[in-house]
Amino acid sequence: MAACKSFLLLLFTIFMALKPANSLPAVFPTPTHFQSLFKQAKNPKPNIPYSSHYFPQVLDHFTFQPKSSKIFYQKYLINRHYWHQGAPLFVYTGNEGDIEWFAANTGFLLDIAPKFQALVVFVEHRFYGESMPFGNESYKSAETLGYLNSQQALADFAVLITSLKQNLSSEASPVMVFGGSYGGMLAAWFRLKYPHIAMGALASSAPILQFDDIVPWSSFYDAVSQDFKDASLNCFEVIKGSWEELEALSAQREGLAELSRTFRTCKDLHSIYSARDWLWTAFVSTAMVNYPTDANFMMPLPAYPVQQMCKIIDGFPAGATRLSRAFAAASLYYNYSQARKCFDIEHAADVHGLHLWDWQVCTEMVMPMTCSNQSMFPSSGFDYQEFAEQCMKTHGVRPRPHWITTEFGGKVLKRFGSNIVFSNGMQDPWSRGGVLKNISASIIALVTEKGAHHVDFRSATKDDPAWLKELRRREVEIIQRWINEYYADYR
Amino acid sequence: MAACKSFLLLLFTIFMALKPANSLPAVFPTPTHFQSLFKQAKNPKPNIPYSSHYFPQVLDHFTFQPKSSKIFYQKYLINRHYWHQGAPLFVYTGNEGDIEWFAANTGFLLDIAPKFQALVVFVEHRFYGESMPFGNESYKSAETLGYLNSQQALADFAVLITSLKQNLSSEASPVMVFGGSYGGMLAAWFRLKYPHIAMGALASSAPILQFDDIVPWSSFYDAVSQDFKDASLNCFEVIKGSWEELEALSAQREGLAELSRTFRTCKDLHSIYSARDWLWTAFVSTAMVNYPTDANFMMPLPAYPVQQMCKIIDGFPAGATRLSRAFAAASLYYNYSQARKCFDIEHAADVHGLHLWDWQVCTEMVMPMTCSNQSMFPSSGFDYQEFAEQCMKTHGVRPRPHWITTEFGGKVLKRFGSNIVFSNGMQDPWSRGGVLKNISASIIALVTEKGAHHVDFRSATKDDPAWLKELRRREVEIIQRWINEYYADYR
Repeated sequence: MAACKSFLLLLFTIFMALKPANSLPAVFPTPTHFQSLFKQAKNPKPNIPYSSHYFPQVLDHFTFQPKSSKIFYQKYLINRHYWHQGAPLFVYTGNEGDIEWFAANTGFLLDIAPKFQALVVFVEHRFYGESMPFGNESYKSAETLGYLNSQQALADFAVLITSLKQNLSSEASPVMVFGGSYGGMLAAWFRLKYPHIAMGALASSAPILQFDDIVPWSSFYDAVSQDFKDASLNCFEVIKGSWEELEALSAQREGLAELSRTFRTCKDLHSIYSARDWLWTAFVSTAMVNYPTDANFMMPLPAYPVQQMCKIIDGFPAGATRLSRAFAAASLYYNYSQARKCFDIEHAADVHGLHLWDWQVCTEMVMPMTCSNQSMFPSSGFDYQEFAEQCMKTHGVRPRPHWITTEFGGKVLKRFGSNIVFSNGMQDPWSRGGVLKNISASIIALVTEKGAHHVDFRSATKDDPAWLKELRRREVEIIQRWINEYYADYR
Repeated sequence: MAACKSFLLLLFTIFMALKPANSLPAVFPTPTHFQSLFKQAKNPKPNIPYSSHYFPQVLDHFTFQPKSSKIFYQKYLINRHYWHQGAPLFVYTGNEGDIEWFAANTGFLLDIAPKFQALVVFVEHRFYGESMPFGNESYKSAETLGYLNSQQALADFAVLITSLKQNLSSEASPVMVFGGSYGGMLAAWFRLKYPHIAMGALASSAPILQFDDIVPWSSFYDAVSQDFKDASLNCFEVIKGSWEELEALSAQREGLAELSRTFRTCKDLHSIYSARDWLWTAFVSTAMVNYPTDANFMMPLPAYPVQQMCKIIDGFPAGATRLSRAFAAASLYYNYSQARKCFDIEHAADVHGLHLWDWQVCTEMVMPMTCSNQSMFPSSGFDYQEFAEQCMKTHGVRPRPHWITTEFGGKVLKRFGSNIVFSNGMQDPWSRGGVLKNISASIIALVTEKGAHHVDFRSATKDDPAWLKELRRREVEIIQRWINEYYADYR
């Protein structure tokens, strides 16, 4: 048994040794198209109302070797338009990417800042964006990348926030942390580990239970499949059948040429796997961002893009191949604007930071995933040994598959901390690794049936449905309550 | 201004750059006599009802460099006499010394184990006792010692306890952690950082507020002095006046020879500072262990040894020098059995582990201490710059004086965690850095006026006073309540 693809939160994909049951050979492709998309999305830098700052950060908070105290510059963004001394700090605990990217896609903080007169801060995660401890050499080897992990990132946040409050002469200000996806895990963990710094956390779409065997390994891909099945049973079946047609092409002499034509590639394909990954990415990503309004998070997409994809598939004339229908659906993801005449599936540029999340997956972010027979993907298992060997080969590192649950707790029980909201939308496959039920009076699960990947964090728009407005209203209400309690305690 | 002596918890002393106001030159003596005493106390190994085990532990939990995953063997002791599967685990979070030493002096856990059918575990702290990550080279340099700190120790405990419960097939067992002094800080911090592993902590004499400027820097030595003042005002004044007489000797041609005679040294003294440190250590240590019964923790001593010392001082004939009285009082500490004919003040053996706590003080355990005019010690200040330079010179390391409060929180407020008992005895100067008031319904301060350094952790004896029995009774009651709640939550 081999691994199903374990999707990187938000932006990239980590392709664990993928060996579908139909005996395609094991591969470990680099996430080229994802990278190129990310690059596309990043450039030009979004125009956001924040000033940039750089904090002298300690390289290693948890050892005291001579090199541990090396300083690097961690980027953070500030908007103090609404703030006055003593008022709250809203801090976004940055995740795996440029901090501007998250700031641009997390309008919620600025939307609600006036109500709280909050200072809004977005802190970049070490090793991403400009926050490179070893400059251009940061991702050179395990020697440098070894300092990239969640506990160091949390300590960075702790040191930076403490210093920032001192510099603002506002030590008494309550700090509320926010994060989405991996950033949401960080926000929740930050409240658990640093309750003296953050009085509360709002963790949106944070799959903190996706580790070890806490949730079924097949749940992620089953959830993607359910989104498509809910949109249309035919759509689900077409996609489910398309992989077989794709594989059949690999046995044909002119199969790759035909595939290149069908997929309108800019250059001839060398392998069917790139086409497979391209489709796979489109379906998974679209399920994640199945937002109720037009949005441009990972790619520009219409409202409810899963339903739109299924309309495309269902609208094909009888007799069209399942593969051509799947391609047409995936094209919505890659080419909603219809500006592209061809697709650069295999030869996207290798942009800065290619292996960073992959590294995190190979060290502590081990989230086993499989594809069950019930999913629309080729069924496959997860072979830890194979995964670990691949990590050693690629990064020279041995994963610690049980470390996250040891460090942060596997299951959330009543007596673990307080003041965390976990919000999840059931459209988002990551929700299956999230906290979906209230744990206590102050560890609160907010679940929306129609929500997608941290949809609550997006800027409010006039088209937002009532359930989304209600979700945000409840979040604001809870934050207000905690802030009131904080001030009452502080006095 | 220079530093007053910052006493090492329990066993050793770290002599920060000491420059009393009377302008003795700055010195940084090694704690020789303390070391020799420790050696004395350790040998032979105490006869304790535990089996020894060794756990393969990860060198660095917080980085993923190739060398981070190196394994070393961490020692732990187990008594499973009273235990059955599913029953609680009582875990002592070891501090700065051999784990047998703590097991021998923390009889409380075994005393109460039958009531709870508890498994009792004492875990040794990395870099102490036999738990040496680099064998005999462990304390060679900052490269190796860099891995010695509290967060790594806490992670060691987390990994070991998790594994132990799995091996015992008793994952559902509640874990209660116990620790005294620095071990008490570790126990409290462990509950704060790993609430999913420990359902509660009993931290005895844990000065978790002794950092930064949370408590007045003079409070420690003022408390030592208060103990002596409470015993006898004359006693306090004699000791207070003795330093001046000691200093006067340094100006005399035959001063050292006279001092050697007065102090009955085995070899002639080379410096008055060693005599000063010898006295100093005796007074501070005796205040710490001012137990209500005979005890042999740091040294064999009678019940209420401070009162005994003051009896000696007060009982001298008129006309005796203050220095000779101070010497006689200190002799009670070093020679209660009267077996010694002379004192080896300067030439004690340099036993294994000499610099270990000193290293911790020079990295994260920065506890500024001064001696005020109201104390019975020569008044002095704390010069951080001087301290930091000395650390760089001695250990090649730069202290991080604000790290502990950033990582663990400076002041304990209501919304920080739960289920911690802080017990403190006001005889113990470390109590001044402890939590002395209830923080919430489950962060509880138990304070006894007559208690000394983690007196509650000592084995019960027939001579224990009523207040000590009552203290332990309340602790047992609280532990029972938390265990009941745990089982109720778990179901």
